[in-house]
Amino acid sequence: MHDKKILLKETEIPKQWYNIVPDLPHPLPPFIEKETGKPGVGIVPKIFPKAIIGQEISQERWIDIPDEVREIYKIWRPSPLYRAYRLEKALKTPAKIYYKYEGTSPAGSHKTNSSVPQAYYNMKEGITRVTTETGAGQWGSALSFAAGVFGLEATVYMVRASFDQKPYRKTMMNAFGAECVASPSNRTAAGRKILAEDPDTKGSLGIAIGEAVEDSLESEKTGKKANYTIGSVFNHVCMHQTVAGIETQKQFAMVEDYPDAIYGCIGGGSSFSGLFWPFYHDKTSKKAPKETQFFAVEPTACPKVTRGYYTYDHGDTAKLTPLVPMHTLGHDFMPAPIHAGGLRYHGIAPTISVLAQEKQISTIAVNQVDAFDSAKIFIRSEGIIPAPEAAHAIKAVCDDARKCIETNTQKTILFALTGHGFFDMTAYDEYFSGKLQPYEYPVEKVAESMDKLRKLYPWLNDVTKQYITSCKQ
Amino acid sequence: MHDKKILLKETEIPKQWYNIVPDLPHPLPPFIEKETGKPGVGIVPKIFPKAIIGQEISQERWIDIPDEVREIYKIWRPSPLYRAYRLEKALKTPAKIYYKYEGTSPAGSHKTNSSVPQAYYNMKEGITRVTTETGAGQWGSALSFAAGVFGLEATVYMVRASFDQKPYRKTMMNAFGAECVASPSNRTAAGRKILAEDPDTKGSLGIAIGEAVEDSLESEKTGKKANYTIGSVFNHVCMHQTVAGIETQKQFAMVEDYPDAIYGCIGGGSSFSGLFWPFYHDKTSKKAPKETQFFAVEPTACPKVTRGYYTYDHGDTAKLTPLVPMHTLGHDFMPAPIHAGGLRYHGIAPTISVLAQEKQISTIAVNQVDAFDSAKIFIRSEGIIPAPEAAHAIKAVCDDARKCIETNTQKTILFALTGHGFFDMTAYDEYFSGKLQPYEYPVEKVAESMDKLRKLYPWLNDVTKQYITSCKQ
Repeated sequence: MHDKKILLKETEIPKQWYNIVPDLPHPLPPFIEKETGKPGVGIVPKIFPKAIIGQEISQERWIDIPDEVREIYKIWRPSPLYRAYRLEKALKTPAKIYYKYEGTSPAGSHKTNSSVPQAYYNMKEGITRVTTETGAGQWGSALSFAAGVFGLEATVYMVRASFDQKPYRKTMMNAFGAECVASPSNRTAAGRKILAEDPDTKGSLGIAIGEAVEDSLESEKTGKKANYTIGSVFNHVCMHQTVAGIETQKQFAMVEDYPDAIYGCIGGGSSFSGLFWPFYHDKTSKKAPKETQFFAVEPTACPKVTRGYYTYDHGDTAKLTPLVPMHTLGHDFMPAPIHAGGLRYHGIAPTISVLAQEKQISTIAVNQVDAFDSAKIFIRSEGIIPAPEAAHAIKAVCDDARKCIETNTQKTILFALTGHGFFDMTAYDEYFSGKLQPYEYPVEKVAESMDKLRKLYPWLNDVTKQYITSCKQ
Repeated sequence: MHDKKILLKETEIPKQWYNIVPDLPHPLPPFIEKETGKPGVGIVPKIFPKAIIGQEISQERWIDIPDEVREIYKIWRPSPLYRAYRLEKALKTPAKIYYKYEGTSPAGSHKTNSSVPQAYYNMKEGITRVTTETGAGQWGSALSFAAGVFGLEATVYMVRASFDQKPYRKTMMNAFGAECVASPSNRTAAGRKILAEDPDTKGSLGIAIGEAVEDSLESEKTGKKANYTIGSVFNHVCMHQTVAGIETQKQFAMVEDYPDAIYGCIGGGSSFSGLFWPFYHDKTSKKAPKETQFFAVEPTACPKVTRGYYTYDHGDTAKLTPLVPMHTLGHDFMPAPIHAGGLRYHGIAPTISVLAQEKQISTIAVNQVDAFDSAKIFIRSEGIIPAPEAAHAIKAVCDDARKCIETNTQKTILFALTGHGFFDMTAYDEYFSGKLQPYEYPVEKVAESMDKLRKLYPWLNDVTKQYITSCKQ
């Protein structure tokens, strides 16, 4: 029996990030500009630093991590890989379960893996303020921390539902030196418009993105340009997250094991990408000793892959971003206030969409009550209170591990424990007091949103067919 | 430059706890029974398992850690020792600062180091329920976790002030499978009496201890005996905490350094004891390469050592415990609702009292606003949000490190970072919004409490003089 915690030295923090783009089954479809219906990146060059744009469109497989970023990674990286001995015992499964735990970071989740390089590149290019949105508060906290490290101001637009559910996330952002504003807010035209229509709105990630982007675009007029930063979906973010997967490969080598199946929850898709991309590279480069399967787990309350359309859609409700090739529930998606704020985004990373469409990964939808049931087993065996987002992956892992009992297979299962749930205790309180409800997003609503989208852009169908292989639409 | 995080392997988890008692400058004064004024342990044998009582009175220097306990320790132990490179830089100090971080445990603090063996020994002796009190909620969470691990029920009486300030601690205890009750409660005669006198009382640790002890004593009548467990003060608890100090010694050996000064906050004194006792043993056994100094840091709002009397007093407000030889503010002490709930206890470990009286350790009192000022510097440099309790030690460390600038001394400073502050965000919110106030406990009140105590036990002066060397009274 090897150690419960498989640990690496700081010198083993990866020196490069892995970019999946050159290894995809086919090239990524381009972004489309809403004005023309033609390929183009729209506002992207106006809101990101050059280094980030370079990474976003890069075709390079390996990209160097700056020393200054690795130095900050040392605060919490390499993160531990745990063997879930006690969970296995609780489930009575012959399966071997491992989890890569990203909850030891300053913000309590994987998000700092990308916030640190994003803040760094902005600082290098002379930017002094950054803006962003946050759903669950994980990304906002992570950006606040990173901005502080590199001496930047930060303005975080936090989805009202989460802002109310998790007031302490705001305090955490303040502790790191940043400002946190409930979204929709009266700071932006987009926010004011939505508040005028519905003053009691709970907000959405799509709305908050719109506000953070608008803040960045408008800041030019003040003479003090603020850049926008993003916590998921974009290629560069997913790529930054691969430090987790690359470390995990080294950790599996230490115990002479290799995963048969990898699970992760998906909101925008970055934490899951960060864990499985390097293993996908093993596969495409014929180095994988096993036929590893990859499972993305989404909530039934926000089933963009299992119930959404693979088409072009905006990343934000205000339609400021270009049209992105992805699985989507529609940019006007209004999430139910379920307790996995980080999974309530209407779209998904374009890379995940390609891989899902090409059946390189499978997607499972899980309802939140089942997720919390599994979290309870996990807490009482492993002693870690997981973020509700990660609990969705735990549910799928428990199901797989239980199947191994019937088939008596000693399968090796790996999952992403993306963060701790210490700021999600309202959710746990609701669960333990029996008030939590399952929720399924109605399929009709997706169809309605798609109809609206097609009416808005009559050329959309042709464009989608042209660029998206085997599109559902 | 060595690694930021100095890590040990799981095989290096200590196999024995260290007991300071045989190495004290003189024997520990005995407990006294209130009925007779003579040495005796009162209710102690009725509320603890035999193994724990054996450890409490043990004169052995090293006590074996059961394998089952070490197995559970592996969930989070060995804990990391950090070199505070970025804090040193922020303070511009030539001093080398290290901190032993106990916040990675399931409950988020050092408390699980003792809750796990306490639950284990209770389970071994056939007990199926345990009771306890909790101030800040750290100990209550830790006991809840440990009870769950060994299949015990747990009832936690939580001081009302903390129960209201930190509602999520209750949820955490529920998550681990325990019950958490605000104290004073109507579950016990002691609680009902206090509620009748003052229905709005904020409670105190002394009151909560009384309730938990009464619950244990009364349980005998129900045919299902519940034992009491305690989170600090007692020798066995301080001894369980020495896993931290013993690990730290190994970690310092790895980087070929040794502390000149060790700091820790003191509530009941167990986390500080856990860190410094093994280094004190180096000193008494002439193995220490340096004349290490030990600094206990208490809040000005609860200054039991700097302002209290070294005498005999009860551990609880209900006067159920025997009289304990310790520095005290009086068992009727009603703490101000300051934000370091874990430091609001009126007394201190008898071992700490002996060492303080014999000038083997120094004590510093810090006010909470200064503590949070230092916490802010720490958060923005080291990226960890400390528990407010630990922030008191950080304040004293920062003062010392700043003095090193003037004297240009490259001193090695170690402190106990006892836990994270993720459940203390109300306190941080108050601090960051400028509402936090400093508070000093009035000396007159201590004198009043001591007068009352002497009137209650007219023989107290004689007894104190007989057993306590150089007593202040």
